[in-house]
Amino acid sequence: MLSRYFPILRWGRSYSASLFADDALAAVIVTIMLIPQSLAYAMIAGLPPEVGLYASMTPLIAYAVFGTSNTLAVGPVAVVSLMTASAVGRIVETGGPEYIAAAAVLAVITGLILLVLGLARLGFLANFLSHPIIAGFITASGILIAASQMKHILGISAHGENLLAILQSLASHVAQTNPITLVIGAASILFLFLTRSYLKKLLRAVGLKERLAAAIAKAGPLLAVIGATAVVAAFSLDAKGVAIVGDIPRGLPPLGMPRFDAGLWSELAGAAFLIAIIGYVESVSVAQTLAAKRRERIDLDQELIGLGTSNLAAGVSGGFPVTGGFARSVVNFDAGARTPAAGAFTSLGIALAALFLTPLLYYLPQATLAATIIVAVLSLVNIRIIRETWAYSKSDFTAMAITIGGVFFFGVETGVVAGVAMSILLLLYRASRPHSAIVGQVPGTEHFRNIKRHDVVTSPSVVSLRMDGNLFFANARVLEDRLLGLAADSPAVKHIVLMCSAVNEIDTSALESLEAINERLKDAGVTFHLSEVKGPVMDRLKRTHFLDHLTGRVFLSQYEAMHALDPETFFLPNGSPLAMDDQTA
Amino acid sequence: MLSRYFPILRWGRSYSASLFADDALAAVIVTIMLIPQSLAYAMIAGLPPEVGLYASMTPLIAYAVFGTSNTLAVGPVAVVSLMTASAVGRIVETGGPEYIAAAAVLAVITGLILLVLGLARLGFLANFLSHPIIAGFITASGILIAASQMKHILGISAHGENLLAILQSLASHVAQTNPITLVIGAASILFLFLTRSYLKKLLRAVGLKERLAAAIAKAGPLLAVIGATAVVAAFSLDAKGVAIVGDIPRGLPPLGMPRFDAGLWSELAGAAFLIAIIGYVESVSVAQTLAAKRRERIDLDQELIGLGTSNLAAGVSGGFPVTGGFARSVVNFDAGARTPAAGAFTSLGIALAALFLTPLLYYLPQATLAATIIVAVLSLVNIRIIRETWAYSKSDFTAMAITIGGVFFFGVETGVVAGVAMSILLLLYRASRPHSAIVGQVPGTEHFRNIKRHDVVTSPSVVSLRMDGNLFFANARVLEDRLLGLAADSPAVKHIVLMCSAVNEIDTSALESLEAINERLKDAGVTFHLSEVKGPVMDRLKRTHFLDHLTGRVFLSQYEAMHALDPETFFLPNGSPLAMDDQTA
Repeated sequence: MLSRYFPILRWGRSYSASLFADDALAAVIVTIMLIPQSLAYAMIAGLPPEVGLYASMTPLIAYAVFGTSNTLAVGPVAVVSLMTASAVGRIVETGGPEYIAAAAVLAVITGLILLVLGLARLGFLANFLSHPIIAGFITASGILIAASQMKHILGISAHGENLLAILQSLASHVAQTNPITLVIGAASILFLFLTRSYLKKLLRAVGLKERLAAAIAKAGPLLAVIGATAVVAAFSLDAKGVAIVGDIPRGLPPLGMPRFDAGLWSELAGAAFLIAIIGYVESVSVAQTLAAKRRERIDLDQELIGLGTSNLAAGVSGGFPVTGGFARSVVNFDAGARTPAAGAFTSLGIALAALFLTPLLYYLPQATLAATIIVAVLSLVNIRIIRETWAYSKSDFTAMAITIGGVFFFGVETGVVAGVAMSILLLLYRASRPHSAIVGQVPGTEHFRNIKRHDVVTSPSVVSLRMDGNLFFANARVLEDRLLGLAADSPAVKHIVLMCSAVNEIDTSALESLEAINERLKDAGVTFHLSEVKGPVMDRLKRTHFLDHLTGRVFLSQYEAMHALDPETFFLPNGSPLAMDDQTA
Repeated sequence: MLSRYFPILRWGRSYSASLFADDALAAVIVTIMLIPQSLAYAMIAGLPPEVGLYASMTPLIAYAVFGTSNTLAVGPVAVVSLMTASAVGRIVETGGPEYIAAAAVLAVITGLILLVLGLARLGFLANFLSHPIIAGFITASGILIAASQMKHILGISAHGENLLAILQSLASHVAQTNPITLVIGAASILFLFLTRSYLKKLLRAVGLKERLAAAIAKAGPLLAVIGATAVVAAFSLDAKGVAIVGDIPRGLPPLGMPRFDAGLWSELAGAAFLIAIIGYVESVSVAQTLAAKRRERIDLDQELIGLGTSNLAAGVSGGFPVTGGFARSVVNFDAGARTPAAGAFTSLGIALAALFLTPLLYYLPQATLAATIIVAVLSLVNIRIIRETWAYSKSDFTAMAITIGGVFFFGVETGVVAGVAMSILLLLYRASRPHSAIVGQVPGTEHFRNIKRHDVVTSPSVVSLRMDGNLFFANARVLEDRLLGLAADSPAVKHIVLMCSAVNEIDTSALESLEAINERLKDAGVTFHLSEVKGPVMDRLKRTHFLDHLTGRVFLSQYEAMHALDPETFFLPNGSPLAMDDQTA
């Protein structure tokens, strides 16, 4: 029981030196990748670089205790950083100590929401976000982030919450471009693209092993950071207008609960909910992908608790919202991480960096950080999936297009909310159109099949409808319409049989609809029967008055029903007994 | 085609003298019932009495042209009047000309919304409202209306948008009760209850025919109005503080489009949407009930257009939102209405009343009108359904309780919105838990059944999951979890077969989940197969790359799949050929 909520109790007991060696190696590689990422993602969020480092320490320890994925690398990620900037920037002026404090509050609220969802086992809420909406959201966010970072490449100032505003702002300031900054930025982008595409091949060609070559290739951003910092320092380019990271306070994060301010909390609650859900969905899909490769399992509800405590930890240690990152987790996996302890070791690496490396980052040009962001987020942009969705399903494409348009023209939150609203509409639309079929007898057998697809025997006086799904409020009205339509369209009909072989649940709405159908058919002189009602459904119906009022009968099998109501039409050639196996699905 | 949008073209062509005679008689009886009702419902809406008459003329003509129910009686109804008071009262001070104008605007917006929903065939949106929520809403609204009318019975002033506020306001003013008003109000309530319960029996006892006795019994409110008016006029009770209806302007409604005011329109849009949906749901359920009794059909989408044009008509002729009323429609049906023309004739009756009868209503005491309201709405209160819902389904009861609590403590709109939000949550919850079963072979047959319910043959290396429903975004993640769980839990598993006999649709999310499952199972060394994929589903899958990447095969039948993957476990005793009829559902 305790180990369900503290997964560390399970894997921690059998922790060994061999596991430690693997986890520690993975932690070193992930740390190298995470140092520039944590600075860059803080920049996306509009926060000073040290906040990125803070968000990469305690959350990783919390996840090691509460998380269920052996390879998920928790920390700042691009999309959640963008959402943080959007949420906090709407309330507080970007940059000041109030902004930093509000970002920590946002992490605390996000953490609490995830924790409550996890303890209440409400992870199904994440199903609100369909794949096309997530894909559209990630792609649009990637483009939005890339656009928002262009100001650092050009060395100008530009603002805007949506793509249009950002592009306008860039266009109106483009004349003030700093040429040296632009050269550094462009060179960084070029270098990163080249290392990303060719460094691994090159290293393999010179004889390095596959895994080592892959790991070093992932250090491209670190190499760019070192090179650019050295150049700026050597030529004092900061004096020529190149924006640099500057002083990063040395030391470990400040601990302490952010001050409670009811107004601020309620203003941030909506954004925190979106960050919680999107962060969770992203994280879980990475974790599931990696777990499956080793036939491991993750616990969807416990993941909510793992990410919830991670965000709480980020909030009480001067950080901002975090989640499981895709690229970093893959590197962690490839580097051989075997337990969540790898994450805890990574946090140790970041702590050492925060204590000893920050002075070395003084001359790091912001343009190079922006370049690492642009190259990273452009890999999120997935045009293929947009094209494939268009080919496969126009309604899913519509939801995707609404999400992308929402992000571009109104900002990230509006985009997600519009997409989710569209998802719910689609869900309701689908649920309101249950599949059903009028069935007839396959000649000479006890089988009853769709009259539109099979040559079957039918009767003018007995009609049977098979509902292929549960009966509940979303389709109760359609059920009424279809069954009453059977009576209205064929005046000769005397009996209607509802075949319930695929019905696992009848809710109150559907029960009342069945009662209404029964009454209305009675008024129309038609008897209403049920067949193949499953055991649990029947048990619940017995607790109501429905069966007392039912004008017809409840038959165990469809053949039994149809034979009893019209023996001259529905019969078996040699009067063979009913097969046992057709009475239950 | 034209007659689809103008149903009058269908029934109008064969209109005859005999139909006219029946419709006209029904119209006379409904008119007698509608005169006091229209005044009373205007009072609930906080509008002067003539507005109630206006709302009972043009809307009925519009419905006669566009509606599809032969017996639905459109006009002002209690719940929609309450919602009007709540919506308009929040924006404009009750009573003045601006209030009246805003109520007409509300009707126009409601009409436009219904019209758009109808033309776009979006009637499924009404499924948002489950039966328990509607039942809870109607019951709570009935109690709220009854409480709000108590001030007229007592002759005091009281206000409040929710039950608590109304009761507090009543309590603080109860000392100012006007005794004569109270006597008139109490006597009216008593008279109405008695006529409602016993008048029909009495009339039958003295020899009247069933139908005539029933019709006269429905005139109880009119008799109360006549009697109370006569008493007040005879003793000049208005001079003793009894509030009377007073001057009702004579004549036909003023025609004209309400002035467009973007601010007002957007403030009323949300309320108009709720009124549209609730009015539609109420109206359709009455119309379906009555249509079924005569084996007639109504067209759910065209009903949106019928009610939409009715509300538009109400809005441009000085009225307020209308819908099909339950009690009046039943009277119309019982009185023998045979076509929508009966409604048009009723509007003629109301027009005559507006032209010639209004002076006679001068002394009508408001207490008597309030009494007719209280007696009418208390019949909406349905405690039995609350109890039965509790017994049948705790989750449905929760949705109902939230709706009732919302209406009582926060007002009608909050109540409905909270109920609908709860419905959506329940829908999503259910959709996220699709029924599925691991299946095994019924020994010696080609049938595969749930291993939990049947003694079936299973194999350690081949596992098959049957999904009982469509695969789409709400359950895609659960599908991943279940299938990957099968591989993770049993290391001996080499093949997983997804049995798709109940799958009629696979959306983009589920397709991507299937692709992810296929990839992840491949990583885990497990081959992934499908069986019994339906024709249309297969056609769409062929438009994607999924089948190219699928590690396993797509089998026509479940037996074929299992036999091919583990012939030593799954076979038929005498090698009998596959039965044709098990390959398609």
